[in-house]
Amino acid sequence: MPGEFASATAVVARGDIDPSGMTVFDCEVIDGWDIAGNANGGYLLAIAARAMEQVVGRPPLTVTAHYLSPGLPGHHTVTVEVVKIGRMIATATATMVSDTTGREVVRLLGAFGHGDPSAPSIIAGAPPQLPDFADCVVDRPGPDQPMPTIFARFSMRLDPACTGFREGRPTGTAEMQGWFEFADGSEIDRIALLLVVDAFPPPVFNSELPVLWVPTVGLTAHIRGVPAPGPLACVFRSRFIADGMFEEDGEVWDSAGRLVAQARQLALTPLG
Amino acid sequence: MPGEFASATAVVARGDIDPSGMTVFDCEVIDGWDIAGNANGGYLLAIAARAMEQVVGRPPLTVTAHYLSPGLPGHHTVTVEVVKIGRMIATATATMVSDTTGREVVRLLGAFGHGDPSAPSIIAGAPPQLPDFADCVVDRPGPDQPMPTIFARFSMRLDPACTGFREGRPTGTAEMQGWFEFADGSEIDRIALLLVVDAFPPPVFNSELPVLWVPTVGLTAHIRGVPAPGPLACVFRSRFIADGMFEEDGEVWDSAGRLVAQARQLALTPLG
Repeated sequence: MPGEFASATAVVARGDIDPSGMTVFDCEVIDGWDIAGNANGGYLLAIAARAMEQVVGRPPLTVTAHYLSPGLPGHHTVTVEVVKIGRMIATATATMVSDTTGREVVRLLGAFGHGDPSAPSIIAGAPPQLPDFADCVVDRPGPDQPMPTIFARFSMRLDPACTGFREGRPTGTAEMQGWFEFADGSEIDRIALLLVVDAFPPPVFNSELPVLWVPTVGLTAHIRGVPAPGPLACVFRSRFIADGMFEEDGEVWDSAGRLVAQARQLALTPLG
Repeated sequence: MPGEFASATAVVARGDIDPSGMTVFDCEVIDGWDIAGNANGGYLLAIAARAMEQVVGRPPLTVTAHYLSPGLPGHHTVTVEVVKIGRMIATATATMVSDTTGREVVRLLGAFGHGDPSAPSIIAGAPPQLPDFADCVVDRPGPDQPMPTIFARFSMRLDPACTGFREGRPTGTAEMQGWFEFADGSEIDRIALLLVVDAFPPPVFNSELPVLWVPTVGLTAHIRGVPAPGPLACVFRSRFIADGMFEEDGEVWDSAGRLVAQARQLALTPLG
């Protein structure tokens, strides 16, 4: 039986898939994958990338999403256009449009393919240093705010050193780290990693800036592997906040100590 | 009089620019902006982004390019499609097609707009530690290889600690750093930064892997400011080489000590 995430990101092709042209998919943005009414950006990215993956028949390697209007619950179409089917890499674009608003929600450009596991590895990096899963804490919004449904679905545990921002005590350093798994125990595949890279509270919440929300302009995720079973160790950092914008860099490591995703987004900092 | 780079990236709209639809531009990929016959990826990105900038009337903030076939000298068309003109952000796609081969060379998705210089800044980073410009060295290919014309145009100076790879003595750490300016003294604007982020020898040349060339799958550049006059301090790193792929992260700092561009690409490592 598919897990909650797989069901919530299901896409159904209208007619035959056209691997050299355009294919239209139907999908539903499900209520409860949102923060304050706007569907999570990684969730929308995952839906669209799943459609792209079905057309090109290969898993995602690098996908860029530009966000255009809020993702609201309800029926959407995803139209996938194949740009090129190469020997190693297949390139495609996608656009997701809301039936409710008639507006385009997100536009994507991505490359799909298989890595070569026999190629030599050189790794200059290590997973974030995190307390044990049991010693990390469930993220909760402020006392006057309802618990978003999506928090319960994620089963996310933040490093307790990061969580003071919820009570007005940011660390002063724009970093956020913790563990991620699905509450229903579903395996995290490559498509789910596209959700994970946008699942954590923005690290800028731990800066001294009075930022209330951080609309993403563009997000690029590199999917570097299929996670081994077990919770993922995740770290997000923003180093350059200027001109009303900042980058957010994320790394996602699996339980075998392997980097499985890297992501960077450019986001805006409307000040509260 | 426009500088060499401005001339080499000129685009001319066919008829009126259509800020809500498609506009076709003519351009020339100029011989001598290549390495071994393939036009530099940053050069191609700059041409296409210049066309996008002309359509939306705003400078680039984040642009992603996916490379599809080699850029050869000769006439190309760039077709720009506006995705959305928002209050702060304008989003567009572009495709560059070679008249010579009939093939698509690069597909782009980008966001354009102006930052807010009055917004507060928090910077957790510093320019790379480089020897003085005069103490850095011109990059030269091996003794049996001709000097590419593009090397003379760049006026690039590598940190001498990085250059042993040209004589078979890589540092063992996939990093490359140095200074960049244009040989003809042209100012480096936002569009030129799209060239700079792909101008240096790949840092993977300083790893122990026998990599001969590194085809880029996708490159995303964040343009964070207009450089102050003077040479740019640049650093490029690859930390995760695995499965025949690696990421390359670049930072470009201006003479005033300000980060003006960040870039990340995913590239392949065909082994020699």
